[in-house]
Amino acid sequence: MTTYAKLDRASLEKEYETLLNAYNEYKAKGLSLDMSRGKPGSDQLDLSQGMFSLLEAAESCYSDDGIDYRNYGILDGIADAKKLFADMLELPYNNIIVCGNSSLNLMYDAVARCMLYGVDQNATPWVKQGNIKFLCPAPGYDRHFAICQSLGIEMIAVPMTKNGPDMDVVEALVSADASIKGIWCVPKYSNPEGVTYSDETVRRFARLKPLAKDFRVFWDNAYVIHDLYDEGDQLLNLQKEVAGTENEDMVYEFTSTSKISFPGAGISCVASSAKNIAFIKSIMTVQTIGFDKLNMVRHVKFFKNLDGVKRHMKRHAEIMRPKFEAVLTLFDKELAPYGVADWTVPRGGYFISLNVEKGCAKRVFQLMKEAGVVMTSAGATFPYGNDPDDKNLRIAPSYPPLAEIKLAAEILVVCVRLAAIEKYLAE
Amino acid sequence: MTTYAKLDRASLEKEYETLLNAYNEYKAKGLSLDMSRGKPGSDQLDLSQGMFSLLEAAESCYSDDGIDYRNYGILDGIADAKKLFADMLELPYNNIIVCGNSSLNLMYDAVARCMLYGVDQNATPWVKQGNIKFLCPAPGYDRHFAICQSLGIEMIAVPMTKNGPDMDVVEALVSADASIKGIWCVPKYSNPEGVTYSDETVRRFARLKPLAKDFRVFWDNAYVIHDLYDEGDQLLNLQKEVAGTENEDMVYEFTSTSKISFPGAGISCVASSAKNIAFIKSIMTVQTIGFDKLNMVRHVKFFKNLDGVKRHMKRHAEIMRPKFEAVLTLFDKELAPYGVADWTVPRGGYFISLNVEKGCAKRVFQLMKEAGVVMTSAGATFPYGNDPDDKNLRIAPSYPPLAEIKLAAEILVVCVRLAAIEKYLAE
Repeated sequence: MTTYAKLDRASLEKEYETLLNAYNEYKAKGLSLDMSRGKPGSDQLDLSQGMFSLLEAAESCYSDDGIDYRNYGILDGIADAKKLFADMLELPYNNIIVCGNSSLNLMYDAVARCMLYGVDQNATPWVKQGNIKFLCPAPGYDRHFAICQSLGIEMIAVPMTKNGPDMDVVEALVSADASIKGIWCVPKYSNPEGVTYSDETVRRFARLKPLAKDFRVFWDNAYVIHDLYDEGDQLLNLQKEVAGTENEDMVYEFTSTSKISFPGAGISCVASSAKNIAFIKSIMTVQTIGFDKLNMVRHVKFFKNLDGVKRHMKRHAEIMRPKFEAVLTLFDKELAPYGVADWTVPRGGYFISLNVEKGCAKRVFQLMKEAGVVMTSAGATFPYGNDPDDKNLRIAPSYPPLAEIKLAAEILVVCVRLAAIEKYLAE
Repeated sequence: MTTYAKLDRASLEKEYETLLNAYNEYKAKGLSLDMSRGKPGSDQLDLSQGMFSLLEAAESCYSDDGIDYRNYGILDGIADAKKLFADMLELPYNNIIVCGNSSLNLMYDAVARCMLYGVDQNATPWVKQGNIKFLCPAPGYDRHFAICQSLGIEMIAVPMTKNGPDMDVVEALVSADASIKGIWCVPKYSNPEGVTYSDETVRRFARLKPLAKDFRVFWDNAYVIHDLYDEGDQLLNLQKEVAGTENEDMVYEFTSTSKISFPGAGISCVASSAKNIAFIKSIMTVQTIGFDKLNMVRHVKFFKNLDGVKRHMKRHAEIMRPKFEAVLTLFDKELAPYGVADWTVPRGGYFISLNVEKGCAKRVFQLMKEAGVVMTSAGATFPYGNDPDDKNLRIAPSYPPLAEIKLAAEILVVCVRLAAIEKYLAE
């Protein structure tokens, strides 16, 4: 077989008819599949079920020195949970606040706090600085972009490379425009591309010279430990790089156990410089008396330590890896020969990024939808939902069972090829 | 014995010496007691321990129609939890959003949302309206006041009466000043006085004519079901009163199970008009993917329904009532005869409000502290920590065991009388 670009019109039409027949057969099945969100499968959630049998006795709810975790108090989280996240992020224990079930909520709160109060007690609130902007490496995470859009923060898309955001662009923008206050990053197994920022990228982040003194890097380390293979990607530790430099307070880091234990019932943390942590706590103590410490106890009793988490993540990988590989194998077999798409091959995280022919992503989404397969909306990976090339699609292979993800991928390759031929025939 | 006011100087000095000896004996014990916060005792928390044995089997984490509650989704909470809060608040199911462990966080978010977005999609954000103000019935809850202070909202104290806030004052202020945007209320068993707003007070709230169209009542129904006696106070349902009127969207109501199940590990809710709930959800969906549904499942499985909660609250009352009665009995015996204080006699909630001689609250707090008893700071029950008469103290009898609360109260009456005599002698 040859690439579609080299086929004549008659061959393309014949191929289209063959594919359309296949598509209609899928469609006739009346399927209902969902590969839209980065949700673990139920078999992954079963791995943590044992967590719910650990607090039966009242004594299990006390600290070694007699603190009753069932009661109010301890704003920044129980010591053992702080230790667990500190080990996971390779950061000092004192730079961690352990919070509730949602790191997204921590990120929203971090932006809202800067809006209402500024980055510290001497800063001007962002709401009082006129129009402000965030850099948004794209493709990226739609929920990050939604925070900016909701709060009226202008978003500037920055191209992603295989080493992370294009740092030439980032450096040029932040050093020239004081209204640029932040950048969203998923530095390891990025959403959706699965790219891990290179050491050089991280070092360039550490050495940024933002014109805005209240510029902040929102470092969403959501997939810090979410390897699909024994040899995971290695991410340089940005907070270690900035420690002791003039950029020491530039980074807010976030992570959670949402994809380690339970989505929506895990624990999360924010990690930052001592100065930032102190300021965050000074506002947080007004927001809440404290987060759910019993859920923290469940997590530390269940995982015990970082090694426990790592062992647990290998079990997740055993479930996830075949799903990723099924999709990628099919792409190699059923997309590669036709020259109508390229995609990333992540070694961790929850997503595969698929670039179809320019102008075809929305059409592929529509074809998939009509065949009963829900995907992340085309465009969602760009600020304002606007993919200028209309080519990027986020593939989330984790949630459906393996047989279903294979079926969904089979339909997807047909749709990608159909859309490409439609484009060629229209030209 | 006669009231101190009628004693001559010599008698006062003699009485002072006797009391001082008693005080010094207490002090010599090196006590460490805490009656500062409205925390349940550990025996109360034991009542809900069974909640932690309900999710051992994966099947227990699914809804009847197969939704896996361990995964993402369901922003407004699981149906059974919405039903439980709807029954508790006597409000329609659809007017409820069930959230995380902290109703305080919901209140903070409600104010922050109004600051950043305004009360609805067509409103002007409060941050863009210059100086804004809240009415603060006082004595009141220090954490409400802290939210205003943190966000730079000016606080105007409104006197409390035995029927709730002085509605003459409230009506006059809100109808005359468009910069008054809110009022904090704990309408049942108010913090700290244990006052339940009268029907007439609630009806006057319902009929308010605020000059600010974006004026909101923050109705913190924290003690909705927290009766000490079989016959609890009855609170008129404000949201039912405003339904269908021009004030339909004026009320944000909050409650939680923090003092039903576990402080910091319960579930909370916000209840409001359909229009408000829709707007809140439109912002909330940017803040988080959802709250901890498994903790909601624990609660509904454990309590089953409103009757289950009511039975459970009777067990709390059996533990709390003797503590309240011990304090009140001692006040009757050791304070009443001397005419140096008055106090409330709540039939529910977590607090007793004690008014000592004018100008003496800080002194009593100090004396207690030196004797090893931590109380809520004098002044904390007023905006800006400023009790103009320096006379109000909040008594929280719930946390220490009965023997300790008796001892703390014994010391307290001595301190109140000491401080009063000091004042008389200095005049």
